Amino acid sequence: MIVVMKKDADRAEINHAVERIEQLGLKPHVIVGTERTVIAAVGDKRPEHKMSLESCPGVSEVVPILAPYKIASREVKPEPTVVRAGSLTVGNKHIGVIAGPCSVESERQILQTAEAVKASGATALRGGAFKPRTSPYSFQGLKEEGLKLLAMARDATGLAVVTEVMSTEDVSTVAAYADVMQVGARNMQNYRLLEVVGKAGLPVLLKRGPSATMEELLLAAEYILDAGNPNVILCERGIRTFEAHTRFTLPLASVVYLHAKTHLPVVVDPSHGTGHTYLVPQMACASVAAGADGLILEVHPDPEKAMSDGYQSLNLDQFEQTMQLCRKVAEAIGKELGSLAPEALTL
Amino acid sequence: MIVVMKKDADRAEINHAVERIEQLGLKPHVIVGTERTVIAAVGDKRPEHKMSLESCPGVSEVVPILAPYKIASREVKPEPTVVRAGSLTVGNKHIGVIAGPCSVESERQILQTAEAVKASGATALRGGAFKPRTSPYSFQGLKEEGLKLLAMARDATGLAVVTEVMSTEDVSTVAAYADVMQVGARNMQNYRLLEVVGKAGLPVLLKRGPSATMEELLLAAEYILDAGNPNVILCERGIRTFEAHTRFTLPLASVVYLHAKTHLPVVVDPSHGTGHTYLVPQMACASVAAGADGLILEVHPDPEKAMSDGYQSLNLDQFEQTMQLCRKVAEAIGKELGSLAPEALTL
Amino acid sequence: MIVVMKKDADRAEINHAVERIEQLGLKPHVIVGTERTVIAAVGDKRPEHKMSLESCPGVSEVVPILAPYKIASREVKPEPTVVRAGSLTVGNKHIGVIAGPCSVESERQILQTAEAVKASGATALRGGAFKPRTSPYSFQGLKEEGLKLLAMARDATGLAVVTEVMSTEDVSTVAAYADVMQVGARNMQNYRLLEVVGKAGLPVLLKRGPSATMEELLLAAEYILDAGNPNVILCERGIRTFEAHTRFTLPLASVVYLHAKTHLPVVVDPSHGTGHTYLVPQMACASVAAGADGLILEVHPDPEKAMSDGYQSLNLDQFEQTMQLCRKVAEAIGKELGSLAPEALTL
Amino acid sequence: MIVVMKKDADRAEINHAVERIEQLGLKPHVIVGTERTVIAAVGDKRPEHKMSLESCPGVSEVVPILAPYKIASREVKPEPTVVRAGSLTVGNKHIGVIAGPCSVESERQILQTAEAVKASGATALRGGAFKPRTSPYSFQGLKEEGLKLLAMARDATGLAVVTEVMSTEDVSTVAAYADVMQVGARNMQNYRLLEVVGKAGLPVLLKRGPSATMEELLLAAEYILDAGNPNVILCERGIRTFEAHTRFTLPLASVVYLHAKTHLPVVVDPSHGTGHTYLVPQMACASVAAGADGLILEVHPDPEKAMSDGYQSLNLDQFEQTMQLCRKVAEAIGKELGSLAPEALTL
Repeated sequence: MIVVMKKDADRAEINHAVERIEQLGLKPHVIVGTERTVIAAVGDKRPEHKMSLESCPGVSEVVPILAPYKIASREVKPEPTVVRAGSLTVGNKHIGVIAGPCSVESERQILQTAEAVKASGATALRGGAFKPRTSPYSFQGLKEEGLKLLAMARDATGLAVVTEVMSTEDVSTVAAYADVMQVGARNMQNYRLLEVVGKAGLPVLLKRGPSATMEELLLAAEYILDAGNPNVILCERGIRTFEAHTRFTLPLASVVYLHAKTHLPVVVDPSHGTGHTYLVPQMACASVAAGADGLILEVHPDPEKAMSDGYQSLNLDQFEQTMQLCRKVAEAIGKELGSLAPEALTL
Repeated sequence: MIVVMKKDADRAEINHAVERIEQLGLKPHVIVGTERTVIAAVGDKRPEHKMSLESCPGVSEVVPILAPYKIASREVKPEPTVVRAGSLTVGNKHIGVIAGPCSVESERQILQTAEAVKASGATALRGGAFKPRTSPYSFQGLKEEGLKLLAMARDATGLAVVTEVMSTEDVSTVAAYADVMQVGARNMQNYRLLEVVGKAGLPVLLKRGPSATMEELLLAAEYILDAGNPNVILCERGIRTFEAHTRFTLPLASVVYLHAKTHLPVVVDPSHGTGHTYLVPQMACASVAAGADGLILEVHPDPEKAMSDGYQSLNLDQFEQTMQLCRKVAEAIGKELGSLAPEALTL
Repeated sequence: MIVVMKKDADRAEINHAVERIEQLGLKPHVIVGTERTVIAAVGDKRPEHKMSLESCPGVSEVVPILAPYKIASREVKPEPTVVRAGSLTVGNKHIGVIAGPCSVESERQILQTAEAVKASGATALRGGAFKPRTSPYSFQGLKEEGLKLLAMARDATGLAVVTEVMSTEDVSTVAAYADVMQVGARNMQNYRLLEVVGKAGLPVLLKRGPSATMEELLLAAEYILDAGNPNVILCERGIRTFEAHTRFTLPLASVVYLHAKTHLPVVVDPSHGTGHTYLVPQMACASVAAGADGLILEVHPDPEKAMSDGYQSLNLDQFEQTMQLCRKVAEAIGKELGSLAPEALTL
Repeated sequence: MIVVMKKDADRAEINHAVERIEQLGLKPHVIVGTERTVIAAVGDKRPEHKMSLESCPGVSEVVPILAPYKIASREVKPEPTVVRAGSLTVGNKHIGVIAGPCSVESERQILQTAEAVKASGATALRGGAFKPRTSPYSFQGLKEEGLKLLAMARDATGLAVVTEVMSTEDVSTVAAYADVMQVGARNMQNYRLLEVVGKAGLPVLLKRGPSATMEELLLAAEYILDAGNPNVILCERGIRTFEAHTRFTLPLASVVYLHAKTHLPVVVDPSHGTGHTYLVPQMACASVAAGADGLILEVHPDPEKAMSDGYQSLNLDQFEQTMQLCRKVAEAIGKELGSLAPEALTL
């Protein structure tokens, strides 16, 4: 941590900052520059320290040097984490493909989708039972009934089930049916939910909030890891920017950045990340080329009739074509995408 | 809702869109333009309709015309809502002032602060007992012990207590001590929490999420209103942009915009909105000049020693000076700020 | 400048970085931390140094400590700069008011507007003759003919003329008619234009680009100052964010920030900053309350018929009312706004 | 264009809006909805029309339906434009690769780089002679001397030269040496420059401004096209968002979007788009997978000693490896990247 003094800071202010650093259990190194003094504070920091020093008189700013996340850091665990949940493998050379409708709507809909996406090579089934919706007047999901339909689809196809949990009181219910619990973008900083999900034992797919920095995403993962759950899959799903021609802006450099900073695997959601069906296939390919460990894609047998997110869903044919394209790109960079044959599901 | 067809949409596609509009219970008006056809869909829409039509072949885009929130709309209730909770009045000509520390830390700290902010004219006490923190390694608040200290400070000063509730399971506990429950920015789209808080009966201070649009904020309020609670105070606390010299960007035009669109009162939080103590006094004045119905300010007797957010807290003197300045600006625009005398607290 | 080494940087890499720092004429201070080594580089830096060190093997990042602007810095010149140009004074306790139409359209329009805004207390007349327009098919301004009409309006009213210059080849023409040359937001980083304008001698109103950081704005000002022109007025006119209910997001904290970092005066443009007439009056007041040294406002006798920007222009009555409101706010904070009486124009 | 009336708009206001629409030469269609009236305005619009109608009393908002660009539109010219300039082909199935240093520094540097990038398969040489720099104290480029060195490198290698022009007065000088003139991101809305470049005859590489919408980018292209120059290459180089771990956020969905809306080819600049060398190779691959028609990459023989942008430059080995990787991805999606053999340069 570097404490930058103001240009006109006097000796008393510098001494005061030095004392505060020592009180915090850190070792100060005073460096007198040509224009101002800076003080390097060495030792084991806590997030509060930065704030405390910023309030000292004569201090201009405090520049943190160390990343505030620990367990998630690649410096702590250099080898990449591979998360496995039933038919789904995410990490290393294997690109998992999680596909399915935004919302579970009916037995027929979810079974038809599960079978089709499996046939095209998906390795897990997504589907929302508890739906966080911007408007209270929108369809809110089939809730536990939806979870049962997802489990039925898993029984029929062998595909692992990935589904969202919205609230702490639903965690045990969702855990009873799901293979991977998803924490949605709007709940990325719902810390109580992260703690409870961290203790539930299942792998967690953690979506980046639309205004979350990389550091905030990794600290949210840290809540889950710190609760004892090492199986966290990070998900880039787009950020909010001034761009209005896409629903969100999908910044794929975050995949490369995260691979440099953390051992956790990173999947990309080009459906939410773009918000328009026609943009999804090429952005799925681009995600693979950027090094994503997995894709999560909205697929619906009849998007026009979907109860949510039809405008960004692929239909079954579009999904099949997207898989073919992405598989070629994966091979070009020395990776394997989805399942190449039914037996591959047992990988 | 206006359905814009692609330039090359053929008759079959236009007919299909017309049929879908009718199936949704809406009345289509086809308008043949010089370059393309648009179809106006008249009737009572639900959010799903837009999405459904966007998936039709030949459709270029769907432009919604009506705001999706209803109960929050000024068109439904033209007269402004005034929210009252003990000593706090927000709305109309009275500018409420909610002041206090980021976190409740000790009996001494909260009592000293409460008495000082009351003496300077604050009309409510803020203080965090349950703290949402970016890092799991940061101080997480005194929890129920903190609530008890807040209630003690209310007993001593008569100031209404505003405090955050982070999770559905804490709602009844927080409701037992607070006068106003705050839903924090990171929980603005925690819909389950909004529903539960909506049923708890206390007034709610709802903070805008850092990437939330005005429409999303009003739809979040709609969840609370729809649960039967009419006492919602909206809070602008800054948005995330590329600006790095402030913690968030504080867009005061949202106050004026919200006053045009909703009857709900709007308070501003210049502490989080700027993230630096030295920016707070003038931004508090600017908030008042923009028409804010209230201010929420972080105040700490010794910011340098604060367990959270010291770098954006006013000390007691700074708060007193800020109040004097803001009071003059309020008078200049024909309003009254805070309490002018102890008896004003019973307003 | 602080050079942060990677956690696993070896001795050779640290030595190499130390050598590079010395080669750049700086003095290295190596600080061995508990987790990694950082090297403070003391001396007179140039922007290239940071980049150069970032490319060294084993370096994680380079954190600059000093602001890169010099002449614009308040550390170099602590007392605020007051810019005067004919009837206009900007800086210190006097809030200048620059008002007029987006585009000069006709003699009648500009004279009528000039007389009306003067009567309401404006201290300068704005009006576009060279118009930067997003579309090549939009009205591009009356060019030199417009400049002549502005000069005629100055002759009639005594109001100083503020008008935009778009290109280096127009600088001498514009300088022949204007009292203050405006560099528009889209040209804030048109460095050649900044240099030429810097040498032209007239005061310059420099608008912040919609994606410019404070540092970029001050470095743009530095180009003008470095060319020998000390009379630079900075203008906050809104930034581009995800907010769509306003044309731009107007971040008034930048006024307070700039006053802390630079001696140059800061005016605010609530017309472009909001993009909607109904938001302008209160945002003008808020700008004054935030400490703005001036306002620049679009005013048109008949906004509905304006050839550009009518949707964000005040009509003459709205301007008069806005002035009355802003004047009260100015007085509340101990300042004076616009001209109170005709003789005040000679201030 | 859809004129949305306020809910409480009265008959006189609706009639007035209808009249204004007719005065503008458009045909109004009044649609009475359940909650409010909207008026569709059919005919040949100009950008001013929208603004004019927004100022009418009783009007809530005006929603444009048609894109404001014409010549750039795919609706006007459905087949993709292929731009050719010497050794460079951009568009269709051929992915051009423009590589070279940020700044031309010396004969040795530019010749060494040109030969190396050609050997690795680049099809054009980039290099800055006129450099737009944020700080007036940074290296500003070798100017015409740099252009001569670029021409020398073209003579030696056969690679087409792509270089930036910053100001109208330099256009003829740059045109004398370059094969493609680049308009930089900060000049994207320097309309005078666009007009002059449009008349100069050479192909133009137009970079997206960091806060430009797709519509603004296409309208900037329209200035060049409207001046009679059909050879415009669009370049996505990243936008400014809240993300600080990258220099800009690189939104690859814009490639797919642009291909849907315009016939102009789109290249991507992953060097500026990420700002860090380690992020460039995978983002280059991702750009290809997203469908980019070309790449523009910063390459320097010794990035640590580069006079600008070393921190985001590939060295010669890194460029060679990036080319190998990108070529495989290009083949996977049925395209060809760079030159496969020396004779391919004459394509």
